[in-house]
Amino acid sequence: MTSTPLLQHFIEDVSDRMTSSLQNIIPSVWDVPVNLKESMTYSLLAGGKRLRPLLVIAACEALKGNRDAAIEVACSVEMVHTYSLIHDDLPAMDNDDYRRGKLTNHKVYGEAMAILAGDGLLTHAFYHLSQIPRKHGIPADQVLTIIEELSEMSGPRGMVGGQVADMEGEQGLTDLSQLEYIHLHKTSDLIIFSLMAGGRIAGAEETKIEALRTFGEHLGLAFQIQDDILDLIGDEAKLGKKTQSDIKQDKVTYPFFIGLENSQMEVKRHTEEAKKIILNAQFPYPELLLEIADYLVSRDH
Amino acid sequence: MTSTPLLQHFIEDVSDRMTSSLQNIIPSVWDVPVNLKESMTYSLLAGGKRLRPLLVIAACEALKGNRDAAIEVACSVEMVHTYSLIHDDLPAMDNDDYRRGKLTNHKVYGEAMAILAGDGLLTHAFYHLSQIPRKHGIPADQVLTIIEELSEMSGPRGMVGGQVADMEGEQGLTDLSQLEYIHLHKTSDLIIFSLMAGGRIAGAEETKIEALRTFGEHLGLAFQIQDDILDLIGDEAKLGKKTQSDIKQDKVTYPFFIGLENSQMEVKRHTEEAKKIILNAQFPYPELLLEIADYLVSRDH
Repeated sequence: MTSTPLLQHFIEDVSDRMTSSLQNIIPSVWDVPVNLKESMTYSLLAGGKRLRPLLVIAACEALKGNRDAAIEVACSVEMVHTYSLIHDDLPAMDNDDYRRGKLTNHKVYGEAMAILAGDGLLTHAFYHLSQIPRKHGIPADQVLTIIEELSEMSGPRGMVGGQVADMEGEQGLTDLSQLEYIHLHKTSDLIIFSLMAGGRIAGAEETKIEALRTFGEHLGLAFQIQDDILDLIGDEAKLGKKTQSDIKQDKVTYPFFIGLENSQMEVKRHTEEAKKIILNAQFPYPELLLEIADYLVSRDH
Repeated sequence: MTSTPLLQHFIEDVSDRMTSSLQNIIPSVWDVPVNLKESMTYSLLAGGKRLRPLLVIAACEALKGNRDAAIEVACSVEMVHTYSLIHDDLPAMDNDDYRRGKLTNHKVYGEAMAILAGDGLLTHAFYHLSQIPRKHGIPADQVLTIIEELSEMSGPRGMVGGQVADMEGEQGLTDLSQLEYIHLHKTSDLIIFSLMAGGRIAGAEETKIEALRTFGEHLGLAFQIQDDILDLIGDEAKLGKKTQSDIKQDKVTYPFFIGLENSQMEVKRHTEEAKKIILNAQFPYPELLLEIADYLVSRDH
């Protein structure tokens, strides 16, 4: 993994703050069934790269925003991301027993609880956002825009739509545009949202938000193509999962459509495009965003 | 069914407007997978009493609010209610093949799509709310409060929590307070939310909102006890479902704990309490709320 000391320090700090925030994300005065709280927390703390939180906070800080408020948004994105993984792992969906080396939610708590834990996380993500004006003095209309964008980009037109397209695509995709629809919505939308929301928390003007959106589109694609490449030629020990699962499941991927070498070139191209956009948009502190872009393309897990 | 001409006209009008709004709830310019949109719409239009929309709109009009804006909130509540039914009917949960005489969502579209249709409806409910300031000129902070209350009352502390308690209670409830926790959260919270949200759309002061909350608590309990009674002694043809399902499933109910006669008295008592609250709070137009309370207690399905 290539990451500079600046980025490494940032990643560790965000990871620590996310863990402590997510541990107590349900207010302790709330009378929530013990097993539900446990099941929700289990998956929230099951590890992962915390990529989306990194993006929210890096975008916010690139525009001199308030890190504490950005952490709150990051918690909501992580709840939405986590709910989607829990539901995705269900027997009726991908039927996975393990994720990141740990038992999936329904293997520990049962299917019914896993469905409800996912529902609870998704709903609570919006509750958590609704508290930001009171806690951090961000104007209500700014937070409402964040809610609008999160619900659009994670809903039927966004992540849920991508999930459906992916599921239907398992019966056979015929061209790259279908694959791009799936990736854009299933994975990129939440990445794009994270960046835009960081900008919104910082009170950024619309041209900056648009730059973050386009940066996110390139980054999301680079990230997904890199995922496809790692599944094909990655190191199982570093990845923490079996490789070549796409081939075994007859899943079409970028390397399948355009070949390995072209896929690697596409990752580089999208990363360079992404960085160019941030540089042109003249953010006060672009360093972390640029370093994250490089970090994602060079990752080996 | 006893309902006055005023109430009957109101019910029909709300029902018509809900049907036409829900038919087109996903913007037609949105590129949403066809089957997902179909599956979401199927359950939204699968009938039902539209009780929650009636409450949103009646509360709003009792306080001279804007009906068009109230309809938007009503659509969001109905999306949340519908998602909860879809997930509740899943094989891992109640495993129901029919609801209101129609096949359940997963029997028509498969389990994976039913999970995703539920997720899509829940997410889209928040999107739909986020559009209200732009469409109807309601202030952003008022809509944010509605979002806060919806996410709290339908989330882990609210409806989802009630669902979990109900599921865990199937292994044996020991006292009435546990049954009340279940009913309060599984059913009443969304009823209470509907009334409060109607008040918020009308820009009501907090004392009026509190009156609506207490009215809703009594109404929700009366509604649920009446449901238990109808399951015990109701007319299967009118109900559109088999009676005595609670006994067959060993589900504890109000009649089980306090007997049929006391249950009937409790329905009356809660209804009278509810009406008293509205009368004391001096709403400009209390008639519809009062009539709905009477209508719910006298219903036979």
